[in-house]
Amino acid sequence: MREIRIIGLETLPIVHEGDDIGALICEAASREGVGILDGDVIVVSHIIVSRAEGRVVHLSDVKPSPFAENVARALGKDPRLVEVVLRESKGIARMGDGHLICETKHGFICANAGVDRSNVPGEDTVALLPEDPDASARRIRERIRELTGKDVAVIICDTHGRPLRRGTINVAIGVAGLDPIWDRRGDRDLFGYVLRVTQVAVADELASAAELVMGQAWEGIPVAIVRGYEYRPSEQATARELIRPRKQDLFI
Amino acid sequence: MREIRIIGLETLPIVHEGDDIGALICEAASREGVGILDGDVIVVSHIIVSRAEGRVVHLSDVKPSPFAENVARALGKDPRLVEVVLRESKGIARMGDGHLICETKHGFICANAGVDRSNVPGEDTVALLPEDPDASARRIRERIRELTGKDVAVIICDTHGRPLRRGTINVAIGVAGLDPIWDRRGDRDLFGYVLRVTQVAVADELASAAELVMGQAWEGIPVAIVRGYEYRPSEQATARELIRPRKQDLFI
Repeated sequence: MREIRIIGLETLPIVHEGDDIGALICEAASREGVGILDGDVIVVSHIIVSRAEGRVVHLSDVKPSPFAENVARALGKDPRLVEVVLRESKGIARMGDGHLICETKHGFICANAGVDRSNVPGEDTVALLPEDPDASARRIRERIRELTGKDVAVIICDTHGRPLRRGTINVAIGVAGLDPIWDRRGDRDLFGYVLRVTQVAVADELASAAELVMGQAWEGIPVAIVRGYEYRPSEQATARELIRPRKQDLFI
Repeated sequence: MREIRIIGLETLPIVHEGDDIGALICEAASREGVGILDGDVIVVSHIIVSRAEGRVVHLSDVKPSPFAENVARALGKDPRLVEVVLRESKGIARMGDGHLICETKHGFICANAGVDRSNVPGEDTVALLPEDPDASARRIRERIRELTGKDVAVIICDTHGRPLRRGTINVAIGVAGLDPIWDRRGDRDLFGYVLRVTQVAVADELASAAELVMGQAWEGIPVAIVRGYEYRPSEQATARELIRPRKQDLFI
């Protein structure tokens, strides 16, 4: 029987700036009797990574630029929030209907450049995406290896809207230890026919699978362990591989 | 411990036209000692549904229209394949670089209107998407209920490319018994802040999770059971809810 388990860690404490997420994960996994095994994929909601890394901004400290004021007025948004979003962006992909879809400094295209009011303490507070989510994933992976001796993969995830389809899904914005895309070109199908093009975004599928137990972080399950999935290891992994270069994008 | 299991059924036989997929699933689940439980989500690759429903076309029987000939020439494709794709489409979303991205009669936007050369016996044969994937899902769900007395949800899945991000992911093209979108607007986060907009495309996340064990059907695992996920039941469910109406689409 081929089986994968998705295990939500339910006893992680509220994460504060400076906390050691790798250690908190190991402690929770141990406390819950789950442990950490070689080959586990540890999926971590970006929000606790952002909080641990101090990527939190108090809107009362923010002075909006004239452009942020203009955009905020057009969209009916808080100009201080718009200012924070613009600081995290290298462009605006679309705006309208109260929404601001930005290209983040990393190259992700998402609402509000990933700046999030949810799961941050204080009405006045917002969380940014981690500065370098791949580096965050690598640090957590290394820390888990130090503490347990186990070789795991780590995915930092965020919830994104997407073109063409309604609803958000969880995707990978940072990875360490696993190839985010499984390149199956040249493989043969069930009947021996060579597959034409098949590059599977496994890191995104793992992130989506994890969200089924995480139920999004506001329930307090910001980390899930995917156990039993045979990923393709990579030491050079980066979630930027998941970003489609614009000129290859036939869809838009 | 909150845990979800994704169980791949490994002993399904090769599916032929007229086969009773609901019965084959129940038999395999029983044979593999997994069984079917109330609340299971049964994720089924569309390709076996298409084969069972006879949605298979022999290219040698196809006479391309003049437009199909033109498109085939422009893209370097088999004109008979293009003809089949066009018959399944209500529009062409994009074409170029050897690719033909169509809007299917159901409203899905995907490469070749979902017409697939993989996992169909014979070099000359292609599979279409099911005529009505929601109806296919409902039939499988009803059959499982008849045979086992269990109330499950069924998702028919396909592998889609997507805008903005590289790699394909598995998504839901037909659903029965579960609400494909979890509407969480109005819920409160960990710190009591009311979530602004959150509609989670859980059917797509379930499809992606299932693909981690299915590894795509050509390995011979076209069905996975997701066990332990508390979905929101719906008798009126349709995967068309997952299609974003064009005028609401800020991304494109």
